[in-house]
Amino acid sequence: MNPTRRVFFISDRTGLSAEGMGKALLEQFENIKFKQMSYAFINTEDKAHGLVQIINRQAQDDGIRPIVFSSVVDESIGRILAEANALHISLFDAFLSLLEQELGTPARHSVKSRVANVERYDARMEAVNFALNHDDGVSEANLKEADVILMGVSRSGKTPTCLYLALQYGIRAANYPLTPDDLESPDLPRMVKAHKNKLFGLTINPERLHDIREERRANSNYSHIDTCKQEVRDAQAMFRRHQIPFTDTTHKSVEELAVNILQECQLKRRF
Amino acid sequence: MNPTRRVFFISDRTGLSAEGMGKALLEQFENIKFKQMSYAFINTEDKAHGLVQIINRQAQDDGIRPIVFSSVVDESIGRILAEANALHISLFDAFLSLLEQELGTPARHSVKSRVANVERYDARMEAVNFALNHDDGVSEANLKEADVILMGVSRSGKTPTCLYLALQYGIRAANYPLTPDDLESPDLPRMVKAHKNKLFGLTINPERLHDIREERRANSNYSHIDTCKQEVRDAQAMFRRHQIPFTDTTHKSVEELAVNILQECQLKRRF
Repeated sequence: MNPTRRVFFISDRTGLSAEGMGKALLEQFENIKFKQMSYAFINTEDKAHGLVQIINRQAQDDGIRPIVFSSVVDESIGRILAEANALHISLFDAFLSLLEQELGTPARHSVKSRVANVERYDARMEAVNFALNHDDGVSEANLKEADVILMGVSRSGKTPTCLYLALQYGIRAANYPLTPDDLESPDLPRMVKAHKNKLFGLTINPERLHDIREERRANSNYSHIDTCKQEVRDAQAMFRRHQIPFTDTTHKSVEELAVNILQECQLKRRF
Repeated sequence: MNPTRRVFFISDRTGLSAEGMGKALLEQFENIKFKQMSYAFINTEDKAHGLVQIINRQAQDDGIRPIVFSSVVDESIGRILAEANALHISLFDAFLSLLEQELGTPARHSVKSRVANVERYDARMEAVNFALNHDDGVSEANLKEADVILMGVSRSGKTPTCLYLALQYGIRAANYPLTPDDLESPDLPRMVKAHKNKLFGLTINPERLHDIREERRANSNYSHIDTCKQEVRDAQAMFRRHQIPFTDTTHKSVEELAVNILQECQLKRRF
């Protein structure tokens, strides 16, 4: 029986990518339990020394050295952290020298002093506002401005996907909820007809939809398993009839859905 | 003069972390222009062979081999991609063997068949709904339920930060816009007084605020530089007077703000 292994994700910036990478690596060892902690913005030598003490104490308490995933760019901070009693995995170092060689130029080895990226901010805010303004109702004007229009029955996952597309890529994603009226018609809903090339459908397992809807309105016609089955069947039939690309959201994370849609609709990121 | 270098981010899943890591690495070479393309869900040998052709054609067209950042886990797919005419940087391989050694157990070397992570979905949806429901107005009940309450003047960056905290960490972040009335009072706004330990302030450079507000309501009192200066000064005075932690959003990305708040307020992620 392996003991629980302590893991530190350390970065001199947000550390989001390093954490994602580290977690993906750990997922490859399913028999081992990990306890993970994140330390972001470790951007001074003082903070680094303090963290080394924490790591060393942990190593002592656990009787086994922790694993450190570091995406620290600053060399002097990196050197301090490397002295901790841990398996030190520096996600950057190995590749930086490889790239230096390939590109024939030395790397900066320091955190970029971030200039205010106004353009990026603006694109993101516009997309977030777009998603927020259109979450409740759609108008012709909105659909015209949209980069993509997500269609699906109520609670099929449209809202978080629209928001994620906006925050992550600055994409203006509109949200078209398929009403029972829409679903009964052999036609595409009137409002979206003119924008057929922007449509993307979301579908979901009816049992899962039933569970989600029960949370919101228990024992209602809306959440009844028969309603869910019927709506999902009708929606899928509509997507197929009109050749609208669609995907099942049941087992997908918002990240997966967003990348899926980006790829399938060949959307251009705004940053 | 270096030519523009083509970069491929390749993954058998979303590739978001690999892309983040790769971009951070490339940022270390500021004199070189990169043209980046992402290929997600390369999860069959056929797709891998197709992509190798694309890379090889690109190498020929550019007269220089592209750089490939791969986070492919599947070994047979990885082998195919490694044959392309490119500098192949496999973000996983180097570390997997290191971890195998440390942990004394072999890695899976395959993509995890994702089980429906219902808990994660629920936590995320709850947090997103929380942020959406409370974006326009706040109520006592909402503030009570919140994990954190972001306070700031209009357009200081509260909304996207709340949404990001919700999507990324499942954190229920409420949004308290400081009104001119709030700002004139020496007290904390009545509604948030009882939740002082959950407050976090956002401030912003007045010139930048002016620009943002001009976009929304040009030539208004709301967007006037004097109004912006006054509001920002008053808000900062309030944060200081009541010892509310706060940060300047002007030069920070939403990701940085979120990690900052997470750390500063010691918030517990819900997934």
